[in-house]
Order: sequence, then structure tokens, then C-alpha cells
Amino acid sequence: MLLKHYYIEKIAHGSYILAGTKSCAVIDPSRDVDLYLEEARKLGVEITHILETHLHADFVSGHVELAHRTGADIFMPQAGNCAFDHVPVSEGDVLEVDAIRLEVMETPGHSPESACYVVRDTSRGEGPLGVFTGDTLFVGDVGRPDLFPNRAEELADKLYHSLHEKLLTLPDHCEVYPAHGAGSLCGRTLSAKRRSTIGYERRYNQPLQIEDKGDFIQSLTSDMPPAPDHFSRCNEINRAGPALLSELPKLEALDPSQFKERMQDPGVIVVDVRNYDAFGSQHIRGAWHVALSGNFPTFAGWVLPPDREILLIAEGNEGAKQANLWARRVGLDRITGYLEGGMLAWAVAGQPTASVRQLSAGDLHEMVQGEALSSFVLVDARSALEYENMHIEGAVNIPAPDLRTRFQELKPDTPTVLICSSGHRASLGASILKQHGFQEVYNVAGGMTGYNAAGYSPKCSVCANPHVSHAFTDVLETTG
Amino acid sequence: MLLKHYYIEKIAHGSYILAGTKSCAVIDPSRDVDLYLEEARKLGVEITHILETHLHADFVSGHVELAHRTGADIFMPQAGNCAFDHVPVSEGDVLEVDAIRLEVMETPGHSPESACYVVRDTSRGEGPLGVFTGDTLFVGDVGRPDLFPNRAEELADKLYHSLHEKLLTLPDHCEVYPAHGAGSLCGRTLSAKRRSTIGYERRYNQPLQIEDKGDFIQSLTSDMPPAPDHFSRCNEINRAGPALLSELPKLEALDPSQFKERMQDPGVIVVDVRNYDAFGSQHIRGAWHVALSGNFPTFAGWVLPPDREILLIAEGNEGAKQANLWARRVGLDRITGYLEGGMLAWAVAGQPTASVRQLSAGDLHEMVQGEALSSFVLVDARSALEYENMHIEGAVNIPAPDLRTRFQELKPDTPTVLICSSGHRASLGASILKQHGFQEVYNVAGGMTGYNAAGYSPKCSVCANPHVSHAFTDVLETTG
Amino acid sequence: MLLKHYYIEKIAHGSYILAGTKSCAVIDPSRDVDLYLEEARKLGVEITHILETHLHADFVSGHVELAHRTGADIFMPQAGNCAFDHVPVSEGDVLEVDAIRLEVMETPGHSPESACYVVRDTSRGEGPLGVFTGDTLFVGDVGRPDLFPNRAEELADKLYHSLHEKLLTLPDHCEVYPAHGAGSLCGRTLSAKRRSTIGYERRYNQPLQIEDKGDFIQSLTSDMPPAPDHFSRCNEINRAGPALLSELPKLEALDPSQFKERMQDPGVIVVDVRNYDAFGSQHIRGAWHVALSGNFPTFAGWVLPPDREILLIAEGNEGAKQANLWARRVGLDRITGYLEGGMLAWAVAGQPTASVRQLSAGDLHEMVQGEALSSFVLVDARSALEYENMHIEGAVNIPAPDLRTRFQELKPDTPTVLICSSGHRASLGASILKQHGFQEVYNVAGGMTGYNAAGYSPKCSVCANPHVSHAFTDVLETTG
Amino acid sequence: MLLKHYYIEKIAHGSYILAGTKSCAVIDPSRDVDLYLEEARKLGVEITHILETHLHADFVSGHVELAHRTGADIFMPQAGNCAFDHVPVSEGDVLEVDAIRLEVMETPGHSPESACYVVRDTSRGEGPLGVFTGDTLFVGDVGRPDLFPNRAEELADKLYHSLHEKLLTLPDHCEVYPAHGAGSLCGRTLSAKRRSTIGYERRYNQPLQIEDKGDFIQSLTSDMPPAPDHFSRCNEINRAGPALLSELPKLEALDPSQFKERMQDPGVIVVDVRNYDAFGSQHIRGAWHVALSGNFPTFAGWVLPPDREILLIAEGNEGAKQANLWARRVGLDRITGYLEGGMLAWAVAGQPTASVRQLSAGDLHEMVQGEALSSFVLVDARSALEYENMHIEGAVNIPAPDLRTRFQELKPDTPTVLICSSGHRASLGASILKQHGFQEVYNVAGGMTGYNAAGYSPKCSVCANPHVSHAFTDVLETTG
Repeated sequence: MLLKHYYIEKIAHGSYILAGTKSCAVIDPSRDVDLYLEEARKLGVEITHILETHLHADFVSGHVELAHRTGADIFMPQAGNCAFDHVPVSEGDVLEVDAIRLEVMETPGHSPESACYVVRDTSRGEGPLGVFTGDTLFVGDVGRPDLFPNRAEELADKLYHSLHEKLLTLPDHCEVYPAHGAGSLCGRTLSAKRRSTIGYERRYNQPLQIEDKGDFIQSLTSDMPPAPDHFSRCNEINRAGPALLSELPKLEALDPSQFKERMQDPGVIVVDVRNYDAFGSQHIRGAWHVALSGNFPTFAGWVLPPDREILLIAEGNEGAKQANLWARRVGLDRITGYLEGGMLAWAVAGQPTASVRQLSAGDLHEMVQGEALSSFVLVDARSALEYENMHIEGAVNIPAPDLRTRFQELKPDTPTVLICSSGHRASLGASILKQHGFQEVYNVAGGMTGYNAAGYSPKCSVCANPHVSHAFTDVLETTG
Repeated sequence: MLLKHYYIEKIAHGSYILAGTKSCAVIDPSRDVDLYLEEARKLGVEITHILETHLHADFVSGHVELAHRTGADIFMPQAGNCAFDHVPVSEGDVLEVDAIRLEVMETPGHSPESACYVVRDTSRGEGPLGVFTGDTLFVGDVGRPDLFPNRAEELADKLYHSLHEKLLTLPDHCEVYPAHGAGSLCGRTLSAKRRSTIGYERRYNQPLQIEDKGDFIQSLTSDMPPAPDHFSRCNEINRAGPALLSELPKLEALDPSQFKERMQDPGVIVVDVRNYDAFGSQHIRGAWHVALSGNFPTFAGWVLPPDREILLIAEGNEGAKQANLWARRVGLDRITGYLEGGMLAWAVAGQPTASVRQLSAGDLHEMVQGEALSSFVLVDARSALEYENMHIEGAVNIPAPDLRTRFQELKPDTPTVLICSSGHRASLGASILKQHGFQEVYNVAGGMTGYNAAGYSPKCSVCANPHVSHAFTDVLETTG
Repeated sequence: MLLKHYYIEKIAHGSYILAGTKSCAVIDPSRDVDLYLEEARKLGVEITHILETHLHADFVSGHVELAHRTGADIFMPQAGNCAFDHVPVSEGDVLEVDAIRLEVMETPGHSPESACYVVRDTSRGEGPLGVFTGDTLFVGDVGRPDLFPNRAEELADKLYHSLHEKLLTLPDHCEVYPAHGAGSLCGRTLSAKRRSTIGYERRYNQPLQIEDKGDFIQSLTSDMPPAPDHFSRCNEINRAGPALLSELPKLEALDPSQFKERMQDPGVIVVDVRNYDAFGSQHIRGAWHVALSGNFPTFAGWVLPPDREILLIAEGNEGAKQANLWARRVGLDRITGYLEGGMLAWAVAGQPTASVRQLSAGDLHEMVQGEALSSFVLVDARSALEYENMHIEGAVNIPAPDLRTRFQELKPDTPTVLICSSGHRASLGASILKQHGFQEVYNVAGGMTGYNAAGYSPKCSVCANPHVSHAFTDVLETTG
Repeated sequence: MLLKHYYIEKIAHGSYILAGTKSCAVIDPSRDVDLYLEEARKLGVEITHILETHLHADFVSGHVELAHRTGADIFMPQAGNCAFDHVPVSEGDVLEVDAIRLEVMETPGHSPESACYVVRDTSRGEGPLGVFTGDTLFVGDVGRPDLFPNRAEELADKLYHSLHEKLLTLPDHCEVYPAHGAGSLCGRTLSAKRRSTIGYERRYNQPLQIEDKGDFIQSLTSDMPPAPDHFSRCNEINRAGPALLSELPKLEALDPSQFKERMQDPGVIVVDVRNYDAFGSQHIRGAWHVALSGNFPTFAGWVLPPDREILLIAEGNEGAKQANLWARRVGLDRITGYLEGGMLAWAVAGQPTASVRQLSAGDLHEMVQGEALSSFVLVDARSALEYENMHIEGAVNIPAPDLRTRFQELKPDTPTVLICSSGHRASLGASILKQHGFQEVYNVAGGMTGYNAAGYSPKCSVCANPHVSHAFTDVLETTG
């Protein structure tokens, strides 16, 4: 038996190939399935089983794509009520991949249909060797049960039982193979380490230490990070069966005049994926800014209207292709073109542009030191949690995605400074404010991290460790 | 805490990066250290610790190279008596990598100085999370204690204690990170799966099931696979500190006349790394054949005289570079050139060649069916174990590397057919026989695997699963 | 005005981009048109004109593919009577590409419809600057007029007039841009230099020195190299309009059992594209051998039956892809699969194989020295011209492609040795003889070149300069 | 005989391989010589001759590097008085490369030592076939004789004689192989076409149409484009023999704190090579801006102080490597490091930044329309010629490089808007003004091209053809 683990940064998604001597299963595949096909070819095994632990909320799964490309069966928890061709599985069902036995363990909680697959390698012994836990049990955390808001308590209750009466009955030595790692919004405090064991998590996993069910439910249904908008959308796409990649629109190179014509269409939006400094310097009026070098898939999935056709502004066509790949992973399937030559070509064509001025840490410090604070608004575009941990006095907290509606709490004619952790989210926020007619908008380059590094505020204990994700929030910008 | 696992096929070597928030340790690095440097750069951490579990016998370690490139300290068990700059460690010593604690556990057995490093992630809890077991405990096997033949029993005794009194005292949930996987000759029956847990191995690891120490020693000191010649050599190289890669000779492209001149030097050998069919068709007289597509590093390390300068025959210069890389991994540091244009250039230059005819499964079957068997010798060049499992009646067993001396048991003027598992080892054997003046030498293309597949002999239970390595022997040819 | 020249080795095909400030023309495009699209994109110009000088005989042109991908018009001599959408052009027609003027000059001879395009850059001056001569005038040669055997004299007559009354009326300084270079079979002695001038060719081009028309016709219709079979085929394909690449079958990876099943179909042939040594060592019975490292497109186009589906044996899948690309360039559109894992996989599957033994120069010398010559036949598989220049006494001349029918002049039960220039063509011949039941077939590795290099025969004046092509024949093997 | 032409964009430099059957010459090689080594290897010929037509002023030649790597001799006009090992050549000297004869023709004018090499292919005929004209004769132009200002008339006189009494005595059909193409500052109006013939240039080359020597001298010594500062420097480097690449400093990745420390050294300058929009948004105070996507080598060579160590700001380390390669081509050998992570890392480290605001065509139009013109200065940073062709009323012409001294004509406390052709040069100018304490500096993104495209001013006849270079000036920004 051979286990291969694939990990996609930014969406922090783990998928697996579990291979016997002739066949293999792929568990929770990514939508771009080439890597599984290539690996199976290298290993000399056939992909015969595609296993889904549940209907993923945060990304579009590759189950249908992979089935189409290989002819393998999709195994999906019965409770998922899926529309595509599949083999529904339920408690106790056993799948066999050569000498490997996979037994279905229903573990509702993160979602109603969530299940785990317990692995036995009969060539070595009868006992369980590992378990694919999907989003039920993570390293250092459990799957959040609040993604269906009006069922949050019910699901938290179920999760408690799934964990304590199902997963924790497995022996200590049983390995844990989750579907996510640090930075995922499917939990709150996932560890950077990507795999674990039942015994280790039994002892050190925080939510598992909460003995009282009421406390557990209370903890898991309060103070959760916000769920991006695409979470429910991806869920439905995965249930219905995502479109095949070969059926999606091709990405066209457009010259400035073609681009300009296409963007007149009210069904079209422009998304600029360059770094915040380039965006700030000159961009197309009305464009969304979601930086490719930030957590592009999460924020693109979160804020961009899914029913619109998208035209891209990127650095080079390689950047446009990358953005398209990431967008498809979160169900944005309607990217149809990009501006060839980028903003330099746009300028040379004499087209109008807009700008967002960047402030350095020092620039901001001067502003907040002076009496100036009364003359401008400082918006902290990070999450509520990050804001609470530490923030600049006088700053108003509106998380970047919320600015889509909460811009109304601000005044378009007051100078507005946005700050986040390093600059990407604030710049997204800036692009939103500009769409709503804000005249004078500033982005703090380097964000709170730069502000702290410059010595303008005490480091909080959390921020002292910028590398490994201590909380979901930082990771939104820095992962990957 | 983040753990990254690197695995090099053919030598089946596992190395690790264990990263905290700012620093990381590299455990049992490969000699080509670029991948660690790049990963550390991507993670944004500094390589501060280089840990060796023991003096590796089967490959040249990258400890000195990596220390030279990074300035990090090398930590090495004190009992290794190493010559290079290092920090000697012994039982109970604790190393700290940010919030990670690594505790030294001396586990002599596979080698006198073998040690393990028990990992604790203090940011999560005090209990042990995993252990770097080097060659002491593998997935499905333990490290062989017989590499120092006259100390085999003593070391097997120590290994028993190291396993039962040290490693198995760790909790079931503790993960096991070994230095080798399936195909390694540092054990006998390593699993394809690359990591495990103490609890799973406690239950299902075969040698660990042997309760009686006497039985354990008996089992671990008999019927072991042969140890390649380079095992003691690499051991010494690692103790002394391997040469830096930047100091090794460059690989030169040589045209036929340059090549011919250089190969006249009695200190030079020619090594042909093409597939056995190309080698068989035409090769330079006297050349060694070690196919790059087989387990090149193991057999090159095993049979090639280490004190000679090596010239290569390969398909393309990319092949020559690959061979050079692999050779350096097993301590063959004196490859200085390759024949540009390969054997086609050699032929066009009108130079003499030799050949080894290939037989198909059917050809061989006809020969052994007829009365012919008396007119030729069939040499089975696989290991004793493989031979015992199943062989063609009348075949003589001389493992390929042994033909270097045991060619004397054969007659140079009798037609000699060599067979192995798939064709590579037999072809190596053929090249050795040709060096000793054998006139008529044949290689069975496809080997016993093809012979069985053609239906000429019953499949043994072992061979029914060609993919995943059930025994060390097959793997010599097929891994990687 | 900017001129870019593209040159494809082996078929020795030259094509051109002629760019103005906004638009460009592509002249005699290759079938794989991506390079033109990319270049136009880089130059920032639109491909608006696709010009064909004539219906190419030796390769499938990219005119239809490029028109399909760009929407540009195809300009084709009216006399071509082409079936696809195009703008027919005739004597005196003028095309404008920005400030560039291209004037049609009808120059029948190489083919009835051949034309040239005279270029003027009106931004610099009114005089002709260069001329796209197609296959009418080459560097050092003229286009052969004998490809329509029963019209050879008529066309040679026309060619004489086209050259002397049309092309040579252009001024000396006018540059010459031909469609072929050294190694092309569309002429006899093309120079390695790829472009020239009217003045230089007027003075030094051999056929142009023949003043008497009768002598010219006589010279151009005798002693011409044979025309490969695909020449008339490609001609017809180009007239009808080649299939779009997107409509051709995909290349599938087949395992040995799939491969075996598919090759049972009588409509399928197996083509082995590896080097002759690997082919000689073990190949699938009945396979054609056309080495990718030789002049694959010319010989594949020449000898392979065009109406059959083709399965490939290659080194690696990259080799299979390369072979497919080349095959499509000569109109072999029905390659559908290749053997994954190559012949090693075949052997491991226990399948039967055949072989052709390779002889070194020395081996052959011994044979022809001894009385042996009576006991075997030596076939010189080069062209008649090469044979006449120099050959081994006693050798019979049958050019490799002719062995498809002339095998009947040889005896299947007599040992047969084949020799060519370096080994590729003789091995092709060997594969043909094996298809017809010849028992004992040998290939001389290194061919006459190796034989000469070994000192076994005097160097002829022609062969002393192996690099630059002095005659069409050598080039068949060595170009590219 | 085979001729290969290599062309390096931006510096518009043409070099050549002229190959016989066994040997080849390289004419006017680039400093990065790998491409010649690789081509020679592919062709199977040895590089035996390295020919220099003269001491290049605009780039560092690869003569010494190539001689060091191959052992070939360097042939250099005697009058160059060069310091390195070479074979001095003078009028009438003949070099032989297999059957190729190269005859030296002394042609002083562009520089005192300039020479041409007339090529004959004796295998085809005795007449001249082509001529390597270096910077004496270009396609559409002749080499400027004014680079040694106090000898301009003398050299123009010599050039007249070299052209009319030497080069133009060659026959019309003789091909012309110059060392430069469109965009080179070694002439004034070079054509985009890269090669020509004596006859065509005799008829249509403008300077060659000036019959009267006095007029010729007058024309060639007035209204010439400015000569960048590195022209005399490269000349001297080439005479002395450039440093070997292996001896130059390595390019180090520096984190923000290392970078900051190193840039404190007064011997160090910071050069930002990103696009002008990113530079404008945030850059390190005092940095030079020379965009890699513009004509980086020319402007870097021109304006950067050659005696200073250089640290780079680029997009990605690939950008830094590219900049280093280009810089070495113009003799800037002291680039030692770059900021890893670029300006985003700088911002996150809380370091101070500066900015230059970008104006769109529309923004500028509004400003110049309003009464505003009195409140700011508009500097046209293009060359005098471009300015004269067409400019915005009220704009002051100071070419970007001249701002190094002429900044003194402007007032640091007056808002200053810079405009050039597309934005790169103006941004270079902006970076210079910022170094001198200018408070409010603007760059017009898209420059005059965008301004025209937006319809704010009539297109001049010159600018209507943006693609092919009509004048040296535009090309400075758009070539390559």
C-alpha cells in the first residue's frame, strides 16, 4: 500500500492517492486532475475509485472531471443526494482496492452528509491503519459546523457525536488524513502540520478537549470566522456535478480596443490581479482588485459576482492563466479574456485610468499622530478577530468583503485610508470603495505587519510569529 | 510545526524538513541539497539544524554539503566518531528548533552509533508527536544489524533492546519517520507506505512480533540479502565527511577520438548506462553495463571499482548527467566524461564494438525445452532468495554482482544465457562475463517476469503482485 | 519591413514572415503554425496574407490551418486549381501588405503552377528587393522538373524559360528566398546556405550556367534522385486542403496487451522509430524501422503505406510525440497510439520479438576479406549516385525504399548484410527484408562512413567533407 | 557554407556564425557566448576564428570570453591597438575557414579602426558572396562617424571614402551583413530589415545617395542622436579586453534588512527595473528607475554611474537575473544583489517609500487645457528630434538622460510633469528629479503615444507607424 498526499496552497486543500498493487483510489480530488492521472501512470496503477468525504464548500471538487477522464466510479455519501452518476455509500459499506479495505463511517457535523473512510491494509493486518477524515477532524481542529447557519447547533451536536462516538473509537495509532490544513476557512485554528494520529489529536486537539457537549456546541457556533460567499455556491456545484474543464470558455488575449468594447457589456466585470502597488498606480475604473499573489482563490470566490463574465488584468499572460486556474477551483468558470500587454498597453492606447495612493508605515504614522485623524477615516479591513487582537486607535473595523455593502457606513467624500495585514485585502477594499464613488482612497502598503515592523505599535504575541499560521486570519493573505 | 518528506526512488531514501516558525531542521539529507535550500526559502525559514540519525551505509549523505551551504550545525551521534565539524549528541540531549523539541534516543543495532530523534511540538502539547527512526525502525521492518558481519549478533542483540526498551516505550500515537522505504537494502521487507505509527508497527511489524530475543537475533542474522560493496564504503565517506560537489570533476563531452584516447588509460573504465537492448546491440568492448533505467545507483555502487575514473556511454547528454548525479549519491565521484553522440557516433567513427544477443521468453522456452540445455549454461543472476522462490529447472544461481569473481565457475567457451527479473541485472552479468572473455553470451529480455507472463511457468504467489514490492529483490530492478 | 526566416531541418523547408508595420504575410507555411502566430503576436502585427508559391510535393503545407486560425486569405497560383477557399493569383497580380508590394511572377517548371513573388519595399524605393522563389530557384540549384514523370521534358522546357526570361531579368541585387535548402529532394545539389541573390546565382548556380536549352532539359531530366512516394501524395493533399490538426486522431498510450490487440487488425502497421541499435536488439515482428534520429519524415513519407493506421514504438512518450509531429508534416495523419514503456514493457509482458544483428566496420571487413563473400549477400541500400561514387566491391545496390519490391531479387534463406551511409537506411531495409521472411539479416552500424573512417577503403573526394551536404543523398541521413 | 544570424533586441546587435564543413568563424560575438558554443556543437564544427569588425561602442563584445572558452584566435583590425591576445589584421589579409575565404577591407569612418570582411565561398566560385560590414554600412543607413566628437569631420571624410571607394566597389549581388539593425544608436535611421545587398543599398540607402563629399560630411555630423555615455566606455572595455563572466560578482538575494544595510554604503546605488506603474506606486527613496521592459541596456548603460555597486529592485528573481544579463552586455559589471520579495517585502518590513503619480492621457489633457499650465512644468523627456517632430505646446524639452545635469533648469518646488513616448523614459527622468529633491513629480503613463491615441493631438506622419522603427528615437522605448 502506498499513500501519496497532494496539497494545494491558498485553499489549503489536501487530496490523496491510495494505491494498491494494480488499482488506486483518489480521495477528495482537486478539479485539475492531471496530477492524479500522471501519478497513476507513473505508479503503473489504474484509478478505479474516486472517493468524496462530503460536498466541499470551499472549492470545486474534481470528482466528475476525474470520472470522465478515467471511467472510475465516484463514491459519495448517500446523504449528499447528488445529481451526477455515483455510487452512494453509507455506514459500514466497504470498498476494496486490491488488498486495501475502506470502510465508510458516517460522521455528520461539518455538513449533514460528511463521512470518513477507515483504511485497513489487509496485507499487513486487520486493524485500522488510517482514516480519511475529510473536514470532520483536522490536525489541531475540527470542521466548523456553522456553514448552514440555521442548522449550526444541530450540526454541532451531530459533530460532537461523530467525533466522540465514531472517530475517537479508533485506536490511538490510527493515522488521520484530513482534507484541509492551516489557512482553511473550514475550521478555525488548523495546524500547519498536515497529518496526525487519532491518539495525538485525542490528547491535544483543542475542541476534542471540551467534554461537555453543551460547551462544545457553544464553542463551535460562536466567534467563527466569516464564511465566504462561495462556500454555499461550491457546495451546490459539487452536488450538481461541476462542468467539465473542456467545456469552459477559452481565455482570449484582447487588445485594448477589443477589451474596451467587451467591458462595456453590463454583464462583464474587470478583475485586476496584479500586486497592489501596480493596481494602485493605474487601473481601469471600476475594476475589482484581487491580487494573485495574495489568497486569490478565497477572495475571488468570496467577493466576485459569480453570474458575471470576467475579464482579467494581469502581469503577462502567464499571470492570466494562473488566475483562471485558481478561479475555476472556486467555481468562477466565466473568465473569458485578458488584456494583452496589460496596463502599459492600455496607457499607450490613451485610455483613462484611476489610482489608489499607497502609504508607507511611516506615512500612516505621521497621519495618525497629527490632528489629521479627524480629517480622514481609517478602515481596518481585516477580520473582527484580527482587529480585536490589535489595532490602531481610532480605526474602524470593516472586513474587506463586507465593504461590498458596508461602504454605506462611510462617506465618499471623506479621505479614506484602508489597512489590513500586508496590503492585499485593504487594496481589495479600496477597489470596492472606488466602485462606489469614493474620491480619495489610500492603501497602507505592508499593512499592520509593516506598521509593527517599523516599531509604531507593540507586537502582539500572535503577530510575533508571522510564519506559521496561528490563526485563520493572517493566513488569508500569507498562505501560498 | 510543518513536516516535509522527501523521497528518492531507487535508493528509497527518505529525508525530512521539520520547520518551526523561523527555523528548520533537515534530517538525513541527500547529497544534492538544492531542494532543501529552495524549500526553506519558500517557507521563509532558515536551516539551522542538520540531523543525522547514523552513518548511512547505502548513500552519501548531504550533511557536510548542507552545512557548507548554510552555516547550520551538524548534529551526529557521538558514537559515530566523525572527522568533520559537528555537534556530537547522546542519549537525552535536547535540540530546540523554535517551539519544537527533539530529544536524542540512542538506538544501536542497525549500526553501533544509530540514534533516533523524538519530536515534541511544545506549541501543541508535551507528549511525543513523532520520531525520526533512521534505519532502526522502518514501516514493516527493522534495520538489518548484519552490515558489520563480525558484529552481527552483538548488534542484533542491541537492536532488540533498542526496539523493545526504547522505541516501543513511545506511545502508540507517535508517528514514525524512517530513513528508507520499499526497495532499500538496509532491511529485508520494507513496506511501500512511507510513514507509520508506533502503535501500528507494534502490532503488525513482523520482526517486532518475535518476542524471544534469541529468535530475533537468529532471524535478523540469517537469510539476509547480500550487502552491496559500497555499503561499507559510504559508511566511511560519511564518517570522514564527503567531498563538496563543487570540488568534484566536471563532466566533459568527448568525441570518439578523445574518448578512445582516454579509455586507453588503465585507470579508466567505461560504463554503459543505456537500456539492455541498446547495450546488447552494440557496445564498447570491456564496458560495464549498468542501466540507468534499472536500479542504477545500487548496482553502480555495488560493482564498479571505486578507485577508477569513469567514462560514460548514455543516450544523450541528459542521460549522462543523470548517471553522474546518481553515481555521486553512492560515492562514485570520479565520472569525468561521456561519449558525445553515443554509440551511433562511435559506429560512424568506425570503431570496434561487441554485442550480447537478447532472447525473448519464447526463445528461451524453446531452448530449455529442447535437448539444448546440455549445450549451454543458464545462469540465474538474481539473488538467492528470488532463485529459491521460483526458478527454471537447470538454472545455476549466481547473483549478478557475484559474477565479478564467480565467473570462474563458468566456462568462457560455453554459450551462456543469463536471466534475472526483467533484464537489467542479467545484462550487467553479461557485461562482466564479456570482460572475462566469454564468447557467446545471451540476455533474456524481460527476465523471469516475461517468462512467467508468457505462461511458461506457474506464477508463484510472490510474483503475482509485480507492482508493490513484496521482497527486497524485485525492487532492485523495478523501483523508481 | 522585417523578414523572418523559419527553417525546418530534415525536410529542409524554409518559410517566411514578411512584416510591415501592422500586417504581415506568411509565405509557404509549415503545417504546425504556432510559431507564426506567436511571432506575429510578438511583432504586434496581424497575419493578413498566406502565400503559397506552389503545391508543395514534399510536405503538407500549413496554408489551410493558418487560414483557419487567423482568418487570413490564402493566395495560390490560379493554375493550381485548388479546392479550398483561396484567392487565385496570376502573372502581374499585386498584393499589398502595408507599404510592401508583392508581385506575382508565374514560373512553371518545377510544377505546372509554380510562381514567385517579387518584393518591393515602397518605403525605401521602387526597385525589387527580393523574390520568394519557392522551388523554382534554390541556392546553388533549381527545382527539379521531373516530379511528373510523363511531363518532365515539357516542364524542364518551361523551367528554362521561367528562369532565363523571368527570374534572371531581376536585377543582380535582388535577394532570393527559396522554399528549400540543403538536403531537400526537390533539387539535386542545394547549398547549405539558405538565401542568396539573383546576381550570385546568375554567376555560380550550376544549372543556370547551361546556356543551351536542350542541354538544360537533358541535364534536368536525367540522373535525378528518386522521388519519394509521398511527393505526389502531398501534392494532392495540398491541392485538396489538408485536414485541420484539431481533427486528427489523438495519440494514445497503450499497454502491451492493448497494443497487441490493436496490432492484430490488418489495417494497422507498427513503426519503430528508435535508433537502429535498439531496433536491432529486439523489436516486434513485422515492424517497420524508420529512425527518428535519421531523416524520419522523408523515409516515413516515402515507404509507409499511407492508408494504414500506425502504432509507434519509441523511446519514451516524447519520442512518440515527435514522430507524430514529423509524420503529420508529410501527410501521415493516422498515427493513433504508441507502446507505453516501449520494448522493455513488451519484453516484461513475455511477448515475442525479432532481431537484426549489427556489424561493426571491422566485422564487415573481416567478412568481405575472407572467402565469406560467397556465403552472404551484401546489399548497399544507398542511392544509385552514392553507390556509384564509391562502394565495396561485390556489393549489390538496392536503395532502401526499393527493397519494398526488389526484395524479390534476393533470397530469404541467404544471409544478407545491409549497408548505407551511417546505418539508418540499411536498418530500414533490414526491417523490410524481415517482413518478407528473410532469416538472417545484418546491419552495418556506422555504414560506409564508419567503414571509411576505420580505414578500410579510400576516402572518395565527396565523402571527405561529411558536414556540408555536397549531394542530396548523404543528407538524407545526416540532416537535422 | 552556412550562415547563421543572431540578433539581440534592444541593443539591436547582429552577430554571425559562418560555418564551413569542419570549422566556423564567429563575427562580432555577444558577451554571452553560450549560444555560439551550442550552435557549433549542433553543427558539428569547431569555432576556430573570432572576428571583430571594430571596437564596438554600444555593447561589450564576447571576443575575449569566446576565445577563453574555445581557444580560438581573435582577429581584430590592427588599428585598434588592442591589449588582449589577438591576431591583428589589415587591408588585404586573408583568413581561411575551410573553403571559405575572408578578406580584410579597411573601412575607417564609424571608428578609426573599422574594417569589413569580404566573404568568398571557393566551393561555389571566386566572386565575393557577402561582406560583414560591422558599423560601416547598415541596411538603410551608414555608421555614424561622430562618436569621437573632435574627430567627427575627419572620420566622416574617411567614411565617405570607405563607402565609395571600398564597399561600393563590390558587385551589386554581394550580400551585406551589418552588426546592427533598427533601434541602434550607432546610426540614425536603420531599417528593420536585417540584411541587404550592395546593389540595393547603392540605390536606396539615403546617405549613399549624397554624392558630394562635403554634403555627406555635413549631413553625418549634424543632427545626430546623442551618444549615450557608455559608448566611449564600452569602446575602452573592448579594447582592453572585458572581464570574464566567471570572474564577475554573483547576484545575491537580500532580505529587506540586508538590503537596507548594503544600500547605506555610499558606493552603492539602487536601481529599480520594474514597470513605471509599480515604480510610481512605491519605490525606495533615491532609487534610479530604468524599466526592464523598456530599452533597459541602453538607458542603464547611459545614465548609471559605472563605478558604483548596484542593488536591484525587480519583479521576481527572474527579473533580477535578466537585468543583470543586460547590464553586463553594456559593461555594468558590478550588480551584486537584489531585494528578495521585492517592494512587497520592503513594505511588510515597514520601510519608508516614495512615489511618483501616474497621469493618464486624459488627466494631462485636462491639466494643459485648464489655466493649470502656469502652475506646473511639463517636461518632454524625449530626444530633440522627437520633440521637434511633434510636442505639446508649452512643453520644455529635456531628454531624460540630460536631466542628470539639467535638473538645475527646473525648480524642485514646482509640480513637474514628465512625458516621453510611452512612459519609460519619463519615469527615468522622474527618478532623477526625485533624487534631487523635487517634491511633486508626475509621469504621463502611455506618453505621447497614448496622448495621440486618445485624440488629443494630431498624429504626425512619423507616429502613425508605431511598429517598424522610422527613427532611432521611438525605438529606444519600444524595441525588444
